[in-house]
Amino acid sequence: MLVSGGLDSTVTLAICAAGGYEPYALSFDYGQRHQVELEAARRVADSLGARAHRVAEIDLRVFGGSALTADIDVPQHRTDAEIRHNIPITYVPARNTIFLSFALAWAEVLGARDIFIGVNAIDYSGYPDCRPEFLRAFEQLARVATKAGVEGAGMTIHAPLLQLSKAEIIRRGHELGVDFSLTHSCYTPTADGAACGVCDSCQLRLQGFREAGLTDPIHYAAA
Amino acid sequence: MLVSGGLDSTVTLAICAAGGYEPYALSFDYGQRHQVELEAARRVADSLGARAHRVAEIDLRVFGGSALTADIDVPQHRTDAEIRHNIPITYVPARNTIFLSFALAWAEVLGARDIFIGVNAIDYSGYPDCRPEFLRAFEQLARVATKAGVEGAGMTIHAPLLQLSKAEIIRRGHELGVDFSLTHSCYTPTADGAACGVCDSCQLRLQGFREAGLTDPIHYAAA
Repeated sequence: MLVSGGLDSTVTLAICAAGGYEPYALSFDYGQRHQVELEAARRVADSLGARAHRVAEIDLRVFGGSALTADIDVPQHRTDAEIRHNIPITYVPARNTIFLSFALAWAEVLGARDIFIGVNAIDYSGYPDCRPEFLRAFEQLARVATKAGVEGAGMTIHAPLLQLSKAEIIRRGHELGVDFSLTHSCYTPTADGAACGVCDSCQLRLQGFREAGLTDPIHYAAA
Repeated sequence: MLVSGGLDSTVTLAICAAGGYEPYALSFDYGQRHQVELEAARRVADSLGARAHRVAEIDLRVFGGSALTADIDVPQHRTDAEIRHNIPITYVPARNTIFLSFALAWAEVLGARDIFIGVNAIDYSGYPDCRPEFLRAFEQLARVATKAGVEGAGMTIHAPLLQLSKAEIIRRGHELGVDFSLTHSCYTPTADGAACGVCDSCQLRLQGFREAGLTDPIHYAAA
């Protein structure tokens, strides 16, 4: 189970645990601008009963190419249409391919047959590696890439949020008792870890809570 | 182009360059037991005119599971049949999936449409992620995982050694003027970097040179 500490992966972890799986949580230290995200991932994994939480260090900065890992300004105050219909500047090349590859490696060591990832419909209009056809292609790859595949066992990529809106994700998490105060979504948090309230990620999150009729419990520097 | 500094990736790089491509060489620092391999990769990339050489740091030890990255003894003096017909203990889970994912990330940043990997027929009887069906599945994934894929451009995974024996690989490299003294294949080199001559990798290499009717120029501690 890929766990970023964000809202989506947290709800996915809750769904995974509620479905009777024994979750093993995997996060990445990939040269993010801040460690707030990894602290959130640890809190979330603990609170939702993950059997183990590992952080794999990888350096995506070696290739450049994204606002989330290089010195490019993260856009703020973009319109909803801008957010939804363009590949965002925060796109990290092949990120989910890399993340799922590591998940596949750990799954093989664990003897696991199920990988969970929290991608959803809002993401996949903008990020190529969040689309349903990407997930199907990775699942096919996973079945031929591993010992389990050679031996005929399957490997399933679960993306339970894929067709949900942000508001639906928040409602689902609320039903499952997720403590949203543990999660972190902001691309550009303040020095004390507060969410900025104005980056794409904060805007989508706040709008989701409004549409779900719920209050976001985290602290915002501005909103 | 994935470059390990071994014999196969070196010949693949020579084939790539001879084919008119402009190679960008990618190596991995993944908790190998020795840095000899990375030094060989740098020498090889330099000698064959790579436009750039990057080393991506990743920690596959976080999951355990292989003799090449964990504290398990590397087997020696195995028979040819043992080497060819079992998934070897030196198998690193999902390694080529992870390596190709990083190559895909860099290819996307570079605008490249071709990824070269030096897997071959001897490997793919033992390693699931060296088989032709794995490479086809990764190519399919690459076409849906990236901006280039979304925009309709293709991505091709080239594995020019796939159907070649070790002797044929060595002959091909010899024809292309490869300096085999720059390459490194041994799993368990001595402290001064000499090849052991007895691990699986040394045995396959030595046998390949014998069958090719050529002399391996590297120094062996024992043979």
